[in-house]
Amino acid sequence: MPAHVDGEQPPSPEPDSSRDGLVASAGHETAGRLLLAAVAAFAERGFHATTTRDIAARAGMSPAALYIHYRTKEELLHQISAYGHRRAVRILGDASAAGGTAAQRLARSVTAFVRWHAEHHTRARVVQYELTALEPGHYAEIQALRRRSGEILRTVLEDGVATGEFTVPDLRGTTRAVLSLCIDIARWYDPAGPDSPEALGELYAQLALRMVGARDSAG
Amino acid sequence: MPAHVDGEQPPSPEPDSSRDGLVASAGHETAGRLLLAAVAAFAERGFHATTTRDIAARAGMSPAALYIHYRTKEELLHQISAYGHRRAVRILGDASAAGGTAAQRLARSVTAFVRWHAEHHTRARVVQYELTALEPGHYAEIQALRRRSGEILRTVLEDGVATGEFTVPDLRGTTRAVLSLCIDIARWYDPAGPDSPEALGELYAQLALRMVGARDSAG
Repeated sequence: MPAHVDGEQPPSPEPDSSRDGLVASAGHETAGRLLLAAVAAFAERGFHATTTRDIAARAGMSPAALYIHYRTKEELLHQISAYGHRRAVRILGDASAAGGTAAQRLARSVTAFVRWHAEHHTRARVVQYELTALEPGHYAEIQALRRRSGEILRTVLEDGVATGEFTVPDLRGTTRAVLSLCIDIARWYDPAGPDSPEALGELYAQLALRMVGARDSAG
Repeated sequence: MPAHVDGEQPPSPEPDSSRDGLVASAGHETAGRLLLAAVAAFAERGFHATTTRDIAARAGMSPAALYIHYRTKEELLHQISAYGHRRAVRILGDASAAGGTAAQRLARSVTAFVRWHAEHHTRARVVQYELTALEPGHYAEIQALRRRSGEILRTVLEDGVATGEFTVPDLRGTTRAVLSLCIDIARWYDPAGPDSPEALGELYAQLALRMVGARDSAG
């Protein structure tokens, strides 16, 4: 396994763009720039080692300018986390609701979820690894979104079992395993490596179909 | 999905034990206590937010007492990471070399790897998520151990393909996916939850057999 494949990579900055959903979620261009700066800082040094001063400096602003938009760094983390988790619910919800067989819905859901984690691996890492730094109320809100993602995927697996497409001895554990496999992409993904988000989505859709014992998937 | 299943859990301290391999790897009881204190501190606040003073305080020592054993906190991280990665190579090497069919060797390897990540989820998280904080020489050493783990598992998959037991269109990607699925356990595992390391090992062995298209594994 080459180093770039399973190695934890230094976080790479993601391109700033006015069409970026995270930036747009801030509702204000300056606030959006601060969210991107916070993602980069949290990914590089961790939430607890980052100060609001660090974030302001990365965004080319004064700490006072930051405080106009965010009172604390936890508020920035919450915004990033809530955006990421709402995206996950939307991605899985759209992909699983688009019709077709359970196998088609599972493949579509996994492909979309994988692509998001590969394309946004730096922010996905922040979203996934800094949860415990959230305030209790924010943590509870995010946990509800995580449960919702799990329920959406579990319904696809249940539907496949009901139609006889899938054979799943442990629905809860297998649903969690499929999500876990996709989420871990954020840990090791390297955009400079050989795997495009699209190719990875295709491979993982096939692996997920095998995990649920989809008919003919092992052939 | 209940909160304890996919929620990132507050790190729980692992039981100190003189029979603990990490403690023993320090070669000295006091140094071993410092390693356990460092694991707890890094897991809770991240490497960059932790000071050697924090680690010494957790171990009930003065910073001066710490410096007798470790000059820097990076030295502590390196010791923890090297121990964890050597364990991984040993676990996979022993399990895959113990004979039997490729399916038996894969099942045994995955079961053992899963159990280690569940039982030692806090230190596994430090080992997996703080790699980029290592000095270049240490980082290269750990990357070599990671490649070795990947090669061991890949050989099992190759053997299964050679004997016709497995059908694997993408050997590199599938090997990485099986390891990734196991490693991500460190992120979400909760010892207070319903999943014992043994039950999880059994489920994941079955899922891995499906991922490699093992004959009869989907039935």
